[in-house]
Amino acid sequence: MDDSCFFCQKLRRLAELPADEVVWEFPSSVAFLGPWQYFAGYCILVSRRHATELFQLSVQERREYLEEMNLLAHAIADCFTPRKMNYELLGNQVGHLHWHLFPRRDDDPDKLKPVWLALNRAERDAAEKTRLQAASLPRAEIAARLRAFLQKHLPR
Amino acid sequence: MDDSCFFCQKLRRLAELPADEVVWEFPSSVAFLGPWQYFAGYCILVSRRHATELFQLSVQERREYLEEMNLLAHAIADCFTPRKMNYELLGNQVGHLHWHLFPRRDDDPDKLKPVWLALNRAERDAAEKTRLQAASLPRAEIAARLRAFLQKHLPR
Repeated sequence: MDDSCFFCQKLRRLAELPADEVVWEFPSSVAFLGPWQYFAGYCILVSRRHATELFQLSVQERREYLEEMNLLAHAIADCFTPRKMNYELLGNQVGHLHWHLFPRRDDDPDKLKPVWLALNRAERDAAEKTRLQAASLPRAEIAARLRAFLQKHLPR
Repeated sequence: MDDSCFFCQKLRRLAELPADEVVWEFPSSVAFLGPWQYFAGYCILVSRRHATELFQLSVQERREYLEEMNLLAHAIADCFTPRKMNYELLGNQVGHLHWHLFPRRDDDPDKLKPVWLALNRAERDAAEKTRLQAASLPRAEIAARLRAFLQKHLPR
């Protein structure tokens, strides 16, 4: 844990967060429903351990974290049938391991491009921000569908 | 193998590619030195198996592919000491598993943003394209440094 780290702080106050934001608490990570629900099911998967690069984890820690990432991506894809999943671990602003898992819609006019071009426009354009944050389903329903898949498919 | 797939075709003609492009042939994937060498060490790691999503691989296949990805990222970070590694598996244009591994420079004016904003500019701006393709070292030297790390750290 790093007291000054945004994600370390967030992991410490899970109980205070809205119920539809914490999608799943895995052994090695926690899945949060992200803000850009134009991409229905978009999640951020935060490592419980504070580290900045995957190769700082032990083989076993990395395996667990990456299998949780894979299972969450599978859940998103199964629930919302995107044309493609996008898996991104960047950390340019917050250096604590977290995956952005974006399901890409077939009707997205920008479907051939990374999401960041649209998200960058949204920073300066309120209408674009509203469009990309709006979900076609309530956030609680999106979270509930993901949880149902995970409940069924998690290793016992 | 999928005859119409860009990466399947590329994997079949490795011997015809320039020596500095094929960085390493792993058991489950092949590492190519990417075009944007402003990010010195940038590689694309292509799965040998044709699949579009990580969850289509078996647990064992996925483990191997992701450990190769991790080792290559470690090699890039060790050789070129970026402020942060960016790991991205998108496939919006070519639906065959491939990781973009971008080492982010501390002197990059766009270091807090994903690389795709600059790469998108480069599509329309020849000077930006030249800037982002130019390497401070010869490509052969970049590939040689990565290979030296991998040779030393690969599991026997």
